[in-house]
Amino acid sequence: VATSDVTELISELDGTARRRALARLLTLVEDGTPERLRAAIRELYPRTGRARILGMTGSPGVGKSTLTNAVAAELRSRGRTVGVLAVDPSSPFSGGALLGDRVRMQSHHADDGVFIRSMASRGHLGGLSFATPQAALVLDAAGFDDVIIETVGVGQSEVEVAATADTTIVALAPGMGDGIQAAKAGILEVADLFVINKADHGGAGKLASELRGMLEMGHAVETDASGAVSWWPPIVRTVAMRPEGIDELVDGFDEHREHLEATGQLDRRRRLRALHAIREIALEQIRTRFSRIEAEGDPLLESLSEKVAARDLDPYTAADELLDAMESDRP
Amino acid sequence: VATSDVTELISELDGTARRRALARLLTLVEDGTPERLRAAIRELYPRTGRARILGMTGSPGVGKSTLTNAVAAELRSRGRTVGVLAVDPSSPFSGGALLGDRVRMQSHHADDGVFIRSMASRGHLGGLSFATPQAALVLDAAGFDDVIIETVGVGQSEVEVAATADTTIVALAPGMGDGIQAAKAGILEVADLFVINKADHGGAGKLASELRGMLEMGHAVETDASGAVSWWPPIVRTVAMRPEGIDELVDGFDEHREHLEATGQLDRRRRLRALHAIREIALEQIRTRFSRIEAEGDPLLESLSEKVAARDLDPYTAADELLDAMESDRP
Repeated sequence: VATSDVTELISELDGTARRRALARLLTLVEDGTPERLRAAIRELYPRTGRARILGMTGSPGVGKSTLTNAVAAELRSRGRTVGVLAVDPSSPFSGGALLGDRVRMQSHHADDGVFIRSMASRGHLGGLSFATPQAALVLDAAGFDDVIIETVGVGQSEVEVAATADTTIVALAPGMGDGIQAAKAGILEVADLFVINKADHGGAGKLASELRGMLEMGHAVETDASGAVSWWPPIVRTVAMRPEGIDELVDGFDEHREHLEATGQLDRRRRLRALHAIREIALEQIRTRFSRIEAEGDPLLESLSEKVAARDLDPYTAADELLDAMESDRP
Repeated sequence: VATSDVTELISELDGTARRRALARLLTLVEDGTPERLRAAIRELYPRTGRARILGMTGSPGVGKSTLTNAVAAELRSRGRTVGVLAVDPSSPFSGGALLGDRVRMQSHHADDGVFIRSMASRGHLGGLSFATPQAALVLDAAGFDDVIIETVGVGQSEVEVAATADTTIVALAPGMGDGIQAAKAGILEVADLFVINKADHGGAGKLASELRGMLEMGHAVETDASGAVSWWPPIVRTVAMRPEGIDELVDGFDEHREHLEATGQLDRRRRLRALHAIREIALEQIRTRFSRIEAEGDPLLESLSEKVAARDLDPYTAADELLDAMESDRP
């Protein structure tokens, strides 16, 4: 039953009810049972791999959503269709996310070539839930030329965005010096492009030279086998509110894409992304098995828990016994 | 080698070098290899189960660390020893955590009956990393009467604190109305006690009656088999800075403890905590196996990744194949 339902939704991605099918598939990816998610991704997957996946990350307050809106408008003006996933780590409730969608949609509401969806991050720090890469696959399968994943840059999120995106954009703003210092370790490694937004505020020049200094210290610059620099992350200044500098930023996406293709990096990144997906899905399968065992009241798990609670057994030995039993149980 | 090292540290917990051994064991739990962590917990575990575990959670800005310091001082004045784990989700760097320790230690530095440790949460939203429950075991094994786990209440953390603690305290403050609304779903289910800190600010009365209204709607009140209310979470007003109300709060811990013991809830909670620990350790073991496979360049995982990247295989089927192979490989 679930599978035929999914099949119908996927077939509607090509029809006139496209937006509705898309919204329902994204809801299924966010809220569906593991079985329906599995059915959806298995069926969608062969249709994916065409979209350019752009990751946009940065601290709160740098103007990421304005920047994303401006980038989407620029991409549209170049004839490209755009799907946006705005991952909101601050709210565990979809209500806020939905309100966000409505506010954001205003500037694009008459345009079928833009689709914006907010996602709650469900307690997964950095804003990329397990569902986010799957939701990106849905937008990819629906035929969007560009999929932008926008997420707040805290903790691990830069690394997770980079693991999902072809091109990772790190947004900064002047006057948030602490932010850079804190984010330094993460962003230098993952940024393919830097944006200094709110570049009309004082301090944009200082921020750019600090960044350049950090890049020159060598961590973030890609070199080829001979040691020659093959990609130097550009630092683009924008004022997304006006908007200014957005054309240059979007040119940067194209240049990075050409670089990825010319150097074989695109294939390498996509293999790494596949590896990441396989691992996360395998872990999720195991988590699901545990939930089922817990919900059904497994006698072994209960007896192990009792022994551990009574200090007759340590939790590591108990975990070993449980894993052994789970593995020998598999058909 | 690792094991004898761990054994030595554990034996030092009873000696004069106790604080140093404690600090080193906590570092081992936070940063050690999975093998050393395993060795430490297996050996420590029989010494644990004596401490009362208190979870303190609340939004940023409610004054949790001041509250924790005041609670620790009150517990000391009652002759109890106190270990504190302050989980800091904002910083991925231990530098900040260490500085925090030094600032916090000032009021207790001459007292061997208090030990405060800050932990970074390492990208695990809600502030409870995998290491936190293990660190609580170290403090328990070291003989502290009370172990306070202090964590920022965002996303899943309330639920995680409650899964680790005997008694969960949710701290609120007036003038942070959005905070309650956002946290509502989570806090009502897990709070054994509510604290309204900064109760000298306007709005404390309004906040208390809002909370009472939410409690009366019935979600959070424990009932026994006959439907009678067996635990009504008290709402304690404090001004931690002065400090005021802390004695009443600490009395609340004792009352809740008596309730847990009288109703058999303490055993039930400890069995659930054991179950939680077994599951998390089992998942961590599997994650470690994956990391090893990835690091060693497993031919199966590489060929699966290539097929998935080329869209010849979907990631779910690939994950199944990988899990099957991992399971049949086990000795």
